[in-house]
Amino acid sequence: MSDSFNTLSHPGGRYLKLGILNGIVVTQNRNRDVFKGDLLVEDGVITKLGEFTERVDDSLDAEGCIVMPGLINCHTHVSMALMRGAADDLRLEEFLERTFAVDARRTAEDIEIGAELGCIEMARSGTTCFLDLYYSEDVIAKAVERLGLRAYLGWAILDEQHTTQKGSPIRNCERFIREHSDSQLIKPVVAPQGVYVCSDDTLIAAKELASRENTFCHYHLSETRHEVYEYKRQKGLRPVEHLAKIGFLTKGDVAAHCVWLTVNEVRELARSGVSAAHCPTSNMKLAVGGVAPLPEMFEEGGGVCLGTDGCSSNNSLDMFLEMKFAALQLKSSRWDASALPAQKALDLATIDAARSLGAEKEIGSLELGKRADIAVVDCRHSAMAPTTSDNAVANLVYASPSKAVRDTIVGGEFVLRGREIVGVDEEHIIDAATAAAQKLLSE
Amino acid sequence: MSDSFNTLSHPGGRYLKLGILNGIVVTQNRNRDVFKGDLLVEDGVITKLGEFTERVDDSLDAEGCIVMPGLINCHTHVSMALMRGAADDLRLEEFLERTFAVDARRTAEDIEIGAELGCIEMARSGTTCFLDLYYSEDVIAKAVERLGLRAYLGWAILDEQHTTQKGSPIRNCERFIREHSDSQLIKPVVAPQGVYVCSDDTLIAAKELASRENTFCHYHLSETRHEVYEYKRQKGLRPVEHLAKIGFLTKGDVAAHCVWLTVNEVRELARSGVSAAHCPTSNMKLAVGGVAPLPEMFEEGGGVCLGTDGCSSNNSLDMFLEMKFAALQLKSSRWDASALPAQKALDLATIDAARSLGAEKEIGSLELGKRADIAVVDCRHSAMAPTTSDNAVANLVYASPSKAVRDTIVGGEFVLRGREIVGVDEEHIIDAATAAAQKLLSE
Repeated sequence: MSDSFNTLSHPGGRYLKLGILNGIVVTQNRNRDVFKGDLLVEDGVITKLGEFTERVDDSLDAEGCIVMPGLINCHTHVSMALMRGAADDLRLEEFLERTFAVDARRTAEDIEIGAELGCIEMARSGTTCFLDLYYSEDVIAKAVERLGLRAYLGWAILDEQHTTQKGSPIRNCERFIREHSDSQLIKPVVAPQGVYVCSDDTLIAAKELASRENTFCHYHLSETRHEVYEYKRQKGLRPVEHLAKIGFLTKGDVAAHCVWLTVNEVRELARSGVSAAHCPTSNMKLAVGGVAPLPEMFEEGGGVCLGTDGCSSNNSLDMFLEMKFAALQLKSSRWDASALPAQKALDLATIDAARSLGAEKEIGSLELGKRADIAVVDCRHSAMAPTTSDNAVANLVYASPSKAVRDTIVGGEFVLRGREIVGVDEEHIIDAATAAAQKLLSE
Repeated sequence: MSDSFNTLSHPGGRYLKLGILNGIVVTQNRNRDVFKGDLLVEDGVITKLGEFTERVDDSLDAEGCIVMPGLINCHTHVSMALMRGAADDLRLEEFLERTFAVDARRTAEDIEIGAELGCIEMARSGTTCFLDLYYSEDVIAKAVERLGLRAYLGWAILDEQHTTQKGSPIRNCERFIREHSDSQLIKPVVAPQGVYVCSDDTLIAAKELASRENTFCHYHLSETRHEVYEYKRQKGLRPVEHLAKIGFLTKGDVAAHCVWLTVNEVRELARSGVSAAHCPTSNMKLAVGGVAPLPEMFEEGGGVCLGTDGCSSNNSLDMFLEMKFAALQLKSSRWDASALPAQKALDLATIDAARSLGAEKEIGSLELGKRADIAVVDCRHSAMAPTTSDNAVANLVYASPSKAVRDTIVGGEFVLRGREIVGVDEEHIIDAATAAAQKLLSE
């Protein structure tokens, strides 16, 4: 039991006290302690871990369940949940053509209903926080706040000739940031889409905006071989080399994919403090060929986290599956069954993700003083049995337990309770999303 | 709509009539028709497809659901569900050492409770039929019959010096076959474990037993590079070459893994009529390095099906996930996003699997006269929405819908209905399995 199993003292005042009792608590603290016991949440913050007997306002029986930090999805396009199953088995160019064509037709209502659907899917699979990259993040923010997830929303910035956004992407992003500067659940992010649609001027303007607004940049980076070699042919440098040269790479950035990197580029990212959001399912499904060099990233001290990417290239927002795919892809490609063990896969989706987002003091583990972003997984589901403290982490990663998620809590508030989505009409959203998708795809 | 959408005439007599109404029916018939409508089951057999208005004894509302053939898992060790999460992130030699050590301590009760747990997990994930390889299949048969799944149970045969079985494996297998010759749900199979524990005499004796008893052989084949090259070093031939030479390979056999094959070996298997049970998740998790050459198998006309392998190397018996892993592994390794499209992945787990088992006239598709082995998937689950007839197959493969399986039917009988396991006390089994695993693993 680590030192951190202590009780914080409170400055006083009344808090809503929620007790989560008798679970197998996978803390993801520094020692990666797993213990059988209770967790107390007051005013959205974890205030006790271990066992306690005090009276609470509300309690959750977690006997036979794993209590764990909510999963953090570090790269997605949540609203594309509407396009699940709409662009499969296509080579990347055809895939992009198909998705861009549909994207261009989407209304604000389509984007909102897609985001609601995606948020419900994430809540049902134990994800409490995600990093999004899209336009119209103001619309997505409404869905996120309605559902009650935590989100880093990155407004897409690209050269004006490449975008369907109305007005200037950089000014749209700036306005979005200012309008959401005091949101409880949402942190606005600047999202230059990728070097292939962003000139150096656009990249630098995005970077300056992020710096001015005290946020970070999220972008696609070196996803496909074609993208990297085409860039090098045109610019004479590989993308990371070029971004380093123009001073774009900055501590706190999160770069999605990072598949086609040289070891020197891995070093450059680590040196700059840029984290890689690894998206193994999407990479495999779109057949990008390479495998993000995670062992080298770990070796060089670079930040690594996981993302599902959008629903049209996955086709799921299930972070439990993303952990499994990440582990199996690396074991398989390195011919080493001990590559990316279960504990490390879980780290990538929790505490390492929080660190990549600069939020390791707030989320990513169950520790005193951290926000109560929690998933409760029912281990008496046949897909999870037998679970004990000894194999809890292995089962979280390899037994694909999203079907066993019972409760999801963000900042102490239930988003999913007893397998029921809280606060919104799930059936209505699913019907509306299905109708919207049918209309959109038949056009 | 294909010719097969007709009504069978019946010889008369009363049947229990079950109507499954208003679903999106993914038939997997020759034309791979998907239609919105009804399905009638009489006395365990599909007797109408399309729309009908006649009175039924029992009906299932499948509005908003996919109605599909039950999935067929063509390689597993069901009873090892008890060892979920007990041997992860280990190199193959350590993995085998660990699992063999636990296996040697298992009692008949452990094997039975493990099989019950595994059968429940399969029923909950839409699997209606599986091919098992293990000893003590008589004990497993009891669990299978209690749950009501369909199973091909292969009694493991190996040289007597390698086994912990009491008595002669070949005589044990023979007794098992005779005792189950008239079972409704179980077909006994002869399962020589693999060339590394079976002498030529043992292999030939197994083959003769299968021939005498009118069944087929199921065995492990060329799973790891080490296994193949070590065999070649000792025998001068690769395993498939040697098995062909001694006349072992026979039409109807199902060989699990088949990863490390030359194109000549692929041809030899196809020529012999031996199907490959591809186990991508297990192969990736155990880091066998290679990828089974499915495109070459298709090219040569060889039979291919899918298996989860045992729970200790997967760690799940979820055939939906197996389809996704199979598709993504092949796309990724061949740098081709159109490799193994969704339709073909679904074929491997349904009609192609039935063909591999010599049961294509009975199971594997929803067609007139076939047994009613059916899974009903709720597409109003957030992980499956939006689903229409157009993307139903893609969603089955890529959206990992085991969490959305609502009903599972074997031979017209419900095994899972409205998300409740029928006929056995699921909670009791899960508690007993958890207790048994704790005792077994702590010894």
